[in-house]
Amino acid sequence: METVNETLKNQVHQWLKENKEEGTKLLQSLVQADSTQGNEANAQGIVIDTLNELGLKVDVWDPDGKSLSKHPNFASSRDDFTGSPNVVGVQKGTGGGRSLIFNGHIDVVPAGDRNQWDDDPFSGKVVDGKMYGRGVTDMKGGNVSMLLAIKVLHSLGVKLKGDVIFQSVIEEESGGTGTLAAVLKGYKADAAIIPEPTNLKIFPKQQGSMWFRVHIKGRSAHGGTRYEGVSAIEKSLSVVEHIQQLEQQRNERITDPLYDKIPIPIPINIGKIEGGDWPSSVADLVKLEGRMGVSPEETIENAKAEMEDWLEKLKHIDPWFEEHPPQLEWFGARWLPGSIDQEHELMQTLVSSYRGVLNEDPIVEASPWGTDGGLLTEVGNIPSLVFGPGVTEMAHFPNEYIHIDRVFEVAEIMACTLVEWCGVQVE
Amino acid sequence: METVNETLKNQVHQWLKENKEEGTKLLQSLVQADSTQGNEANAQGIVIDTLNELGLKVDVWDPDGKSLSKHPNFASSRDDFTGSPNVVGVQKGTGGGRSLIFNGHIDVVPAGDRNQWDDDPFSGKVVDGKMYGRGVTDMKGGNVSMLLAIKVLHSLGVKLKGDVIFQSVIEEESGGTGTLAAVLKGYKADAAIIPEPTNLKIFPKQQGSMWFRVHIKGRSAHGGTRYEGVSAIEKSLSVVEHIQQLEQQRNERITDPLYDKIPIPIPINIGKIEGGDWPSSVADLVKLEGRMGVSPEETIENAKAEMEDWLEKLKHIDPWFEEHPPQLEWFGARWLPGSIDQEHELMQTLVSSYRGVLNEDPIVEASPWGTDGGLLTEVGNIPSLVFGPGVTEMAHFPNEYIHIDRVFEVAEIMACTLVEWCGVQVE
Repeated sequence: METVNETLKNQVHQWLKENKEEGTKLLQSLVQADSTQGNEANAQGIVIDTLNELGLKVDVWDPDGKSLSKHPNFASSRDDFTGSPNVVGVQKGTGGGRSLIFNGHIDVVPAGDRNQWDDDPFSGKVVDGKMYGRGVTDMKGGNVSMLLAIKVLHSLGVKLKGDVIFQSVIEEESGGTGTLAAVLKGYKADAAIIPEPTNLKIFPKQQGSMWFRVHIKGRSAHGGTRYEGVSAIEKSLSVVEHIQQLEQQRNERITDPLYDKIPIPIPINIGKIEGGDWPSSVADLVKLEGRMGVSPEETIENAKAEMEDWLEKLKHIDPWFEEHPPQLEWFGARWLPGSIDQEHELMQTLVSSYRGVLNEDPIVEASPWGTDGGLLTEVGNIPSLVFGPGVTEMAHFPNEYIHIDRVFEVAEIMACTLVEWCGVQVE
Repeated sequence: METVNETLKNQVHQWLKENKEEGTKLLQSLVQADSTQGNEANAQGIVIDTLNELGLKVDVWDPDGKSLSKHPNFASSRDDFTGSPNVVGVQKGTGGGRSLIFNGHIDVVPAGDRNQWDDDPFSGKVVDGKMYGRGVTDMKGGNVSMLLAIKVLHSLGVKLKGDVIFQSVIEEESGGTGTLAAVLKGYKADAAIIPEPTNLKIFPKQQGSMWFRVHIKGRSAHGGTRYEGVSAIEKSLSVVEHIQQLEQQRNERITDPLYDKIPIPIPINIGKIEGGDWPSSVADLVKLEGRMGVSPEETIENAKAEMEDWLEKLKHIDPWFEEHPPQLEWFGARWLPGSIDQEHELMQTLVSSYRGVLNEDPIVEASPWGTDGGLLTEVGNIPSLVFGPGVTEMAHFPNEYIHIDRVFEVAEIMACTLVEWCGVQVE
């Protein structure tokens, strides 16, 4: 294995220090470009400009929902991606080196209740070394770390032997169609790094997950004689509690030490509830929508079957459910669980770069959420790991932020990783 | 008090028998005209045609939300009623008699989950003497009873001394703006009958009610680390249970024998729930909407204050609510409670007509829901009672129906009531 020589290492460090303001501005402009589902084009425009400046060969396309939706690994809440471009930039190596994918998603989840944000969710405001905004930690900060890693080597005139493939994908937050489209278009490599918000932990295992919907029936009646009806809202309380019990059971089974510090390794999150159509009527239908975590030790299919069997048991709790069984469907997003061998050379390279930059050992854990790593591995056969500068706890939160210093630390570690993994052409 | 002579009584009975098919068709056409909020014009068109045929002076107008919304008794989920006409028909008496309002609402609640209906909700289908459809019992059946009562006397050439004012109003299901507009336009009388679905019971007392909305806060987080957030959906379960306890307490206080046979005299119905915006995010906001029943023994203000105080107590159950108190608002619809003296002459007249037609004593109870009677009494100073052919249990239900025979029985009782109350001009 090549190791980064001290001179180059110092040059990388120095360059990142000197270009901190410019790098911070790049992140800020990306955060200010609201890229919730369907609105990705502006943020992708900034990525495209940056890749072009660095001399990468840039490919931009709206994924074709019609053909992608036939793929067994397609899972999305939509099948028309018009106006939601996927971007891949390729930096050809001089030859003879290993190739690496940098994969980051450009889409961000909705801002939620704006009253819970101290500032505009897309402000990109910087206070005390932290930048605020929806998506800054999940995962535009990580994307900028990758861009800076490429940029610093480019600026220093370092020629890598292996190819670097930068994927700025859409739809990670709803099932990975962007990554699926990139892999199917042939953008593969010997390994991949995904800088999701791990707070500089290395995640060799990634939890899978999928979305579900439960329809719970009641029987309508006038609210003034509500005892003549059956409230789907009241029934839905039982269903929520029942699902909470399943979550508890499934998590008691998890023994992998990589999950030791995670309170709920594979959560079942009920994220949406909606039911009834009139304040004065008894609600006859409630819809729950949620996300079920899938352990790397099980398959999507097993997890689905367990949920299905569990909901069947509701009829023993309340006879109403015998005649009106809640209907379960799996819809929209799905992330395959994934894992990379902890002895894989990319793991070693990353750990070594981490030590070289931060003078300490990294924390290695399992990811508490799904990433596009499962798709890269399953569909592209590309060993993938997750490592990034964002703060897990702030992902999908109001007042989401990132420590700007972390973005530059990860950029430095990634630059060293590129050098070690891809190799440098000495002229 | 005049009593209906046997000859006229028999003529009324005979005419209604002979015109059953035509009356049934009128009801069917009214049911087939979907008159959910905002779509009332077609059904009102049928009412207008019928009133014109009977020679009433017809007034049709879209209530003016701008001026009405300033009235202290205005309560609606909207303030623009363009395209939602109110209709009043006046049959002037020959003089010297008491006037009577027939008040019926033309609006119907939404059909709800269509899968729970055996037929199209607006089919008006007749099977085994029952007609099916949204609004047939609440309250187009009652409206047709009133129209037939006027029509039979018209056809038999009976000249009433007192005025009959037929009000076909919008918005009863969301706060009574139609009735408010009619009263404020000067359409008043010595007393009023509202044929809401009482299943031929007489309701001298009417429960008031009003709509409320509760906002319950959580804190968003990524569903994969849901333990970092606080689920507004889970918190809303506590709020629903807390409100259920309030309902129980309030109903334990009700001792009026008119409520003896009613399982929950003044229910609190939670009719809508909505929260969260992404399956993979922890929900940070849930909104509940419901209807709070108000006893004729209390005021709207007292009931509101009790709910407000009760929700305050949540902080003792869960410290989360101390820092994030659920926010309660009163919105949209509100029905004043109302009551008529049980010794009022209209009560006696109706009871006597009932006995004359059905040869038995009517059941006298308290209404389990609000009606426009509260508004007629409070704003117009018009003593009002509720009596109609529909089945309370079917109001707001899927497969709502009415027994067609009941519509004609009530028509007959109402015709006799008109004769007794308004008096007949003998030529």
